[in-house]
Amino acid sequence: MKNSRARVLLALLLGSTLIACSSNTNDTSSNNTTYRPTGDLGVIIERASGQVQIVNHSHKQQISEIDGLGDLSHASIVYSRDERFAYVFGRDGGLTKVDLLKDKIDRRIIQSGNSIGGAISQDGKLVAVSNYTPGGVKVFNSDTLELVADIKATIVPSKGLTKDGLPYRSKVVGLVDAPDNKFVFSLFDSHETWVADFSGKKVEITKYTDIGLFPYDALISPDGRYYIAGLFGEDGMALLDLWHPEKGMRHILKDYGKGDKKLPVYKMPHLEGWAIAGDHAFVPAVGQHKVLVIDTKTWQQVAEIQAHSQPIFVMAQPDNRQIWVNFAFPDNNTIQIFNTETFEKVNTLQPGPAVLHMEFTPRGEHVWMSVRDSNEVHVYDTKTQTLLKTIPSKSPSGIFFTNRAHQIGL
Amino acid sequence: MKNSRARVLLALLLGSTLIACSSNTNDTSSNNTTYRPTGDLGVIIERASGQVQIVNHSHKQQISEIDGLGDLSHASIVYSRDERFAYVFGRDGGLTKVDLLKDKIDRRIIQSGNSIGGAISQDGKLVAVSNYTPGGVKVFNSDTLELVADIKATIVPSKGLTKDGLPYRSKVVGLVDAPDNKFVFSLFDSHETWVADFSGKKVEITKYTDIGLFPYDALISPDGRYYIAGLFGEDGMALLDLWHPEKGMRHILKDYGKGDKKLPVYKMPHLEGWAIAGDHAFVPAVGQHKVLVIDTKTWQQVAEIQAHSQPIFVMAQPDNRQIWVNFAFPDNNTIQIFNTETFEKVNTLQPGPAVLHMEFTPRGEHVWMSVRDSNEVHVYDTKTQTLLKTIPSKSPSGIFFTNRAHQIGL
Repeated sequence: MKNSRARVLLALLLGSTLIACSSNTNDTSSNNTTYRPTGDLGVIIERASGQVQIVNHSHKQQISEIDGLGDLSHASIVYSRDERFAYVFGRDGGLTKVDLLKDKIDRRIIQSGNSIGGAISQDGKLVAVSNYTPGGVKVFNSDTLELVADIKATIVPSKGLTKDGLPYRSKVVGLVDAPDNKFVFSLFDSHETWVADFSGKKVEITKYTDIGLFPYDALISPDGRYYIAGLFGEDGMALLDLWHPEKGMRHILKDYGKGDKKLPVYKMPHLEGWAIAGDHAFVPAVGQHKVLVIDTKTWQQVAEIQAHSQPIFVMAQPDNRQIWVNFAFPDNNTIQIFNTETFEKVNTLQPGPAVLHMEFTPRGEHVWMSVRDSNEVHVYDTKTQTLLKTIPSKSPSGIFFTNRAHQIGL
Repeated sequence: MKNSRARVLLALLLGSTLIACSSNTNDTSSNNTTYRPTGDLGVIIERASGQVQIVNHSHKQQISEIDGLGDLSHASIVYSRDERFAYVFGRDGGLTKVDLLKDKIDRRIIQSGNSIGGAISQDGKLVAVSNYTPGGVKVFNSDTLELVADIKATIVPSKGLTKDGLPYRSKVVGLVDAPDNKFVFSLFDSHETWVADFSGKKVEITKYTDIGLFPYDALISPDGRYYIAGLFGEDGMALLDLWHPEKGMRHILKDYGKGDKKLPVYKMPHLEGWAIAGDHAFVPAVGQHKVLVIDTKTWQQVAEIQAHSQPIFVMAQPDNRQIWVNFAFPDNNTIQIFNTETFEKVNTLQPGPAVLHMEFTPRGEHVWMSVRDSNEVHVYDTKTQTLLKTIPSKSPSGIFFTNRAHQIGL
């Protein structure tokens, strides 16, 4: 794999592109909202209605519901470093800044035609969004949502022109933040990973080319050291050690993927869901009813765990004691819990139809899960795996608690 | 080492022991205090004046100063799970609950004659304090500070009676919280470690006896798995694997300590300062000018790093890339930074007289340090090790940011 380094001088685009949108505050809290701390809050995506719920995970209750967020399929969230604002990345290119203290939209812009996630910089001053159309990354001032940098992805001549008559640029996926105010992301159509360094006065971009065919998603380890991109076009994954960027990217897990069997894959697993616990990463197998156990020193598979169906998210409790696994359709009514030390199955739960996402409370006593097709969020005790509370929610998908503000890569 | 298990039925003491104390709000913030998020706040102990500063680490500024907290030598802090309240453990037995949104003392009690730190339970509902006089642990409702449990330490007959005419009970040290609503602590005079499990309706206490002579402090690993007590009376340390409590405690690092040389030890190192980064723990050597590198799989020393003087705190950046070390008197004007991968020295700083404590911002871009005898708190950039800001403070010692609310053992 090649490693080319280019200093790219990005224009500071100071023209504001703010678009004011309606918001609807619906504060059902009985608390005094003028003294609302933000350490135990969260936001739940209500995909079908373009709304989000603000919740409190100490009291296991909804605080408010906010609408006007557009198309929230596959939406994700990052938080400001003070845990006041949630930045919601919508599929329609919408970037919405939600104020958790005022229960309303603070600002909202449409920054592209089609986007797929975002990240916030280590210092909290920049919010980056990865876009499909037009392909690239836009970086915004986290206070004002003014555009700070527009990083255009590589042109892919074989793809011709877009409907706007412009050269087609690669889709961008797997965008994460890394230490030293960097953003790392991958280019699906041009098989690249780029590192954009915002720590200096000029943005500096390092490009890794030929990383493997069609990176489709990525993760970064909790310490911000390893960036790992999944490959849609071939088996294996591409790993960048950010402590040694000079070594370039390398292939790992060469058998990881669909293999020769060309299994029917109902959904490619989410890589955000990689659980790294101690020396092991617990990884959803592609198209197989297995969780793979990877040694994070050698990046070799050392074991596999038989599971109920094709895993989607594999999440480790904050104490790393157990992993919680959800599954692809049609088995997405089930959750399994495994011990990270013995790999034994601890429990199988059937919360209901379409369990899409899980989020642990910061110290791990509870896990919240969205049960989309029963319009509920369930709160379980992690130790006993008993249901503690059911919270009504409209087609809930992603659940995001504010402690993510304090974690590299989240 | 023996492992005896006893079910202890602790009386629920419902009588309130609240003592109202004066508070002094001095809000110098220009912000609208009715919309103050709590994710980027912190509290700094101003030991000499019995005050604390509330600070904001996004803006690197003091928000307010609160007095009336009593004797704050060796004071430490834990946070409520919503990051609104700081529980300050004073040396005089004072337990003070400070409201970071109202800039004032919410409640304050004198719960013993002499205390040495505390912890908050995983669910945030219990605050525990470890006491020297009378020896034991008291556990309080975190909302009201009402006494929930009074765990009396082992009587030590050889120590006779206290001045109150009561049997002397062992001092309690090294109190931490652990997953599943447990508190773990050690008994200095009776050479024990106890685990108090508050997850059920009755408190269940497991006692490990003969753990080693005179445990004086302890730490718990970031995942809550390993509890390690330092021993004042002999070399080595005592380790409890909380995933396997049935195995009891075992001695590790048999050469760790003063050894045969009986070095002059100016100050026993803080164990809270153990940095665990990857497979290594970085540990201050006792009385020697070294940082020891320990393999956390085998708990054997694998390397040592020559340092400027006797280390006190060895702290890892949140990205685990570097450790920051401060030193005992008379060399406590100096800080050294080492690379955790190569063990090479990165830099030596001289911030000023008596650098007592360091605290990293949650994602690690900055480190704050208290320079007691110049009455300043310094904020450094961790990447460049340059001074960014100096904040006036009266004899500052401990610095504690609210993201500790979300971390096991802090």
